[in-house]
Amino acid sequence: MSYRAPLQDMQFVLNELAGLDKVGALPGCEDATPETVDAVLQENARFCSEVVAPLNVNGDREPSSWKDGEVTTTRGFRQAFQAYAQAGWQGVQHPVEFGGQGLPKLVATPCIEMLNSANLSFALCPMLTDGTIEALMTAGSRAQQETYLARLISGAWTGTMNLTEPQAGSDLALVRTRAEPQGDGTYKLFGTKIFITYGEHDMAANIVHLVLARTADAPAGVKGLSLFIVPKFLVNADGSLGARNDVHCVSIEHKMGIKASPTAVLQFGDHGGAIGNLIGEENRGLEYMFIMMNAARFAVGMQGIALAERAYQKAAHFAKERIQSRDLAGSAGPVAIIHQPDVRRMLMSMRAQTEAARALAYVTAAAHDIALHHADAQVRQEQDAFYEYMVPIVKGWSTELSVDVASTGVQVHGGMGFIEETGAAQYYRDARILPIYEGTTAIQANDLVGRKTVRDGGATAKAILAQVRATTVQLAAAESDSLQAIGRQLALGADALEAAVDYVTGNIKADIKAVFAGSVPYLKLAGIVLGGWQMGRAALAAARRLQDGQGDKRFYQAKIATARFFAEHILPQSAAYRTEIVEGAGSVLALDADQF
Amino acid sequence: MSYRAPLQDMQFVLNELAGLDKVGALPGCEDATPETVDAVLQENARFCSEVVAPLNVNGDREPSSWKDGEVTTTRGFRQAFQAYAQAGWQGVQHPVEFGGQGLPKLVATPCIEMLNSANLSFALCPMLTDGTIEALMTAGSRAQQETYLARLISGAWTGTMNLTEPQAGSDLALVRTRAEPQGDGTYKLFGTKIFITYGEHDMAANIVHLVLARTADAPAGVKGLSLFIVPKFLVNADGSLGARNDVHCVSIEHKMGIKASPTAVLQFGDHGGAIGNLIGEENRGLEYMFIMMNAARFAVGMQGIALAERAYQKAAHFAKERIQSRDLAGSAGPVAIIHQPDVRRMLMSMRAQTEAARALAYVTAAAHDIALHHADAQVRQEQDAFYEYMVPIVKGWSTELSVDVASTGVQVHGGMGFIEETGAAQYYRDARILPIYEGTTAIQANDLVGRKTVRDGGATAKAILAQVRATTVQLAAAESDSLQAIGRQLALGADALEAAVDYVTGNIKADIKAVFAGSVPYLKLAGIVLGGWQMGRAALAAARRLQDGQGDKRFYQAKIATARFFAEHILPQSAAYRTEIVEGAGSVLALDADQF
Repeated sequence: MSYRAPLQDMQFVLNELAGLDKVGALPGCEDATPETVDAVLQENARFCSEVVAPLNVNGDREPSSWKDGEVTTTRGFRQAFQAYAQAGWQGVQHPVEFGGQGLPKLVATPCIEMLNSANLSFALCPMLTDGTIEALMTAGSRAQQETYLARLISGAWTGTMNLTEPQAGSDLALVRTRAEPQGDGTYKLFGTKIFITYGEHDMAANIVHLVLARTADAPAGVKGLSLFIVPKFLVNADGSLGARNDVHCVSIEHKMGIKASPTAVLQFGDHGGAIGNLIGEENRGLEYMFIMMNAARFAVGMQGIALAERAYQKAAHFAKERIQSRDLAGSAGPVAIIHQPDVRRMLMSMRAQTEAARALAYVTAAAHDIALHHADAQVRQEQDAFYEYMVPIVKGWSTELSVDVASTGVQVHGGMGFIEETGAAQYYRDARILPIYEGTTAIQANDLVGRKTVRDGGATAKAILAQVRATTVQLAAAESDSLQAIGRQLALGADALEAAVDYVTGNIKADIKAVFAGSVPYLKLAGIVLGGWQMGRAALAAARRLQDGQGDKRFYQAKIATARFFAEHILPQSAAYRTEIVEGAGSVLALDADQF
Repeated sequence: MSYRAPLQDMQFVLNELAGLDKVGALPGCEDATPETVDAVLQENARFCSEVVAPLNVNGDREPSSWKDGEVTTTRGFRQAFQAYAQAGWQGVQHPVEFGGQGLPKLVATPCIEMLNSANLSFALCPMLTDGTIEALMTAGSRAQQETYLARLISGAWTGTMNLTEPQAGSDLALVRTRAEPQGDGTYKLFGTKIFITYGEHDMAANIVHLVLARTADAPAGVKGLSLFIVPKFLVNADGSLGARNDVHCVSIEHKMGIKASPTAVLQFGDHGGAIGNLIGEENRGLEYMFIMMNAARFAVGMQGIALAERAYQKAAHFAKERIQSRDLAGSAGPVAIIHQPDVRRMLMSMRAQTEAARALAYVTAAAHDIALHHADAQVRQEQDAFYEYMVPIVKGWSTELSVDVASTGVQVHGGMGFIEETGAAQYYRDARILPIYEGTTAIQANDLVGRKTVRDGGATAKAILAQVRATTVQLAAAESDSLQAIGRQLALGADALEAAVDYVTGNIKADIKAVFAGSVPYLKLAGIVLGGWQMGRAALAAARRLQDGQGDKRFYQAKIATARFFAEHILPQSAAYRTEIVEGAGSVLALDADQF
């Protein structure tokens, strides 16, 4: 089966949970009218499902390939990317000034989800380009912006992020690539970068590499990293393409999944030096990178949600088609396996986690828009703190659950799931990179503990918890068994999260290792409690609509049932995470390294 | 790195937890002296790590292949299997009368673990042969035993199980393959069987297919299935190979993992009929199949443990070698990532789950030996009930956790884990079949609920829980923080399991679907509580040894720390499972099929 965009759920989340009306009322976001948003989503859904989704299987069976420094992408990708660019999809969230549509992040987010559901490998190229645009918007000079932005936003050129080196993965302090000033304002770069997504391909005329490197006199560690633009083809003063730059793809990786996305090893400067331009100031490269990494991390979180949605759709479709065994409570012949209770449980688990993660991510996107555009500085500051707290959760939690959801999707298919022709296995393989790249879950958890929780003494976390508590009060007051049941589990989850926040802030000075031993459980705990919070809000909104008698009754009933499933099957893990975090550090750290 | 058999942990479990001395004292098990067992394990470890393990990667890169009905296995497999046969490894647990070593299942179990750790794809061939031997021992005629057993036990021939058909996966009632009596005592079989592991290969001279089929007048459903022996080559009266039988491999599957293991589509009777002999009586085929399925399910559970062990070893090795980032509490240069708390947490999680599952499985194997050989009928009956209760848990829980452990293994490797050359990805792909074949986790859970819990009104489950409670009392009484902490969590786990057993037995009549909606959570809950029980027993035994001052002090300390990790990081999930089972059925079943 093909991909069908879950527009009804997306619209529900945009309108009922993420406050699209409020975002559309922000200065600079006025174009995001309900009509425009609806048209954009409809058209994007059509493009993604009709043009991009059918290429997903091809990418797995006929991966992008390397020969003599050139990368040939999967058949169909080049044409699809040109159609993507021509339709203006690369520009949805980018400035009108440079040819974009200037829509808020909240509107771009479902578009990103749809593109990734359709084809994770394909979507990586626009995602990296988004990151490049973001970095140039933030730290690029006016001249750099004028040279590059319009061409990146139109999709004529694409972008990459060059951080990792063989000895420098999660630890960027170990980056060795060096940059030598040439006296004319340019630098020559020398070094090897690995794991460069779309570092070489045939889908666009030029590739704009953003490269972390070190100047000769730079301080050691991450404080000595600078950020450079190194285009594949140099750009003449008139904007036309000049000489081939000295950056070459020496190989691409043989990966378990996302095989259509070429993962390049790039060699800079083997033939005299790759010419680059400094972005912003020397030694501030990591700071600029972080700006774009926040956006990229959010986007990878969206990949997790997108993949989970696609895996869910496939499994649900199979479960309705596959006839096997009788109904437990009936005596007639064999029935579709969706009537088996455990298949139902698996599908509900996939669905509930996907919907919760979607809701949390869209609400986070709205906070970003408000933080950028709101007239009131106090509101901007609050929403920015909310956004910053959420980014590692959206990235870490959504991608971890995508692995679980894709794995469950294989299980729903039984033996057929293990056969490659069926297609469920591709999601399982593709998903596995998501909790790793753009910062592993542990890196996200370190960020959540260090910069996002400890730095303000837990204030942001506690402010969010107060909002969760307000929702539990509303749920408890509702005249509905389901809403009350959701409220009870959410309250228990909030207790667990509060205990974890107290433990983290209270012990970081005395025993930093004990706190970090529970960092990933803390991230996952925050994910399920805050995802559960959104599902609680969703259930309240659905109950209001049912009471009003407006809209699609069965959709709202399903939303309440799904929220209740999340509350009774996912949220109860909160207490287990609390125990791990608060009581479990000693046993994490008890062994010596040589005892493993 | 290569595989190193965890002999120290195996010996600890055999001796301290599974009662090897008591098993060795059973009538018929006298050969299992400590010296013999030690020699068998040492030699098996050497064979598996030196001969079989190096072929594991090859099997993934150069899968078995099909051409014109013939299957060529991965280079090296044929020779390794001949060496395996010549060394007598196929016969470890089979009767001396037919050339086996006649050792108890408890001794065969670590051998099976080692072979599967070394090479899951390779080990499948002996595993299926074990099943064939088991079925013939149970239900074959004396003549059938004399024709086949010695040759299967020597490894000259191999065996298969033919259950699945395109329309009959988990639901064997749908089997259509038919058998027509020829009047001479033989039958002709016609039909298609799929997913037949080692259904065709080049490693042995003959392949003995055991096939479920229907005679013309058989009742509908599973009560009309009979079991037939259909050899690839007919066997002459003198035991020599006769004509090629009409069973042909028309293709093998393109799978996500265990690629060296050929998964055949077998066509029976396309050229006049495949000649088969009935095993036992007509229409009792499923009953015979169940006998061998119990053994096969246990063996697949061992595959889960074996794969988890291998994935753990690889991840631990990588974590000790990979230098990245500073020690959180130190100020020196970058250190091996094993010093990062979250890497430590991941490794402990892999290790603790693997050790717990191993302990539970070996204890289960011992129960099987006692149930077969003990002089006292009452003891035999009790141990048989214990074994029967445990088999679906060993199968379902150990395989589900193997997927989690293999996934965590990829995560420990970071970006390298996603690159196929690293090898961690193979375990992730291979593991995914384990919760599916030989009965999905849901099928195991149905068995656990229906035949193993409800049928005796929860008596066996409660008897086991009483043993768990006895261990919690011992732990609570120990003068050790660690043992007391383990006891506290185990007691909470036992409470949760007891609530689940009460729910299952109390509601099966009133609401069968509600009970089965929680069947897999019940299986997983039983897994962690009973695995945690074994880890509690292990901690008590280790503490005794430490007090005695005997043996390897650091091993015992590590065992207590690992047991405590299990108690504080895995056992706390018990309460969440309890909630799912006892409170969560409504939301599993709330939606209509068309709402998915």
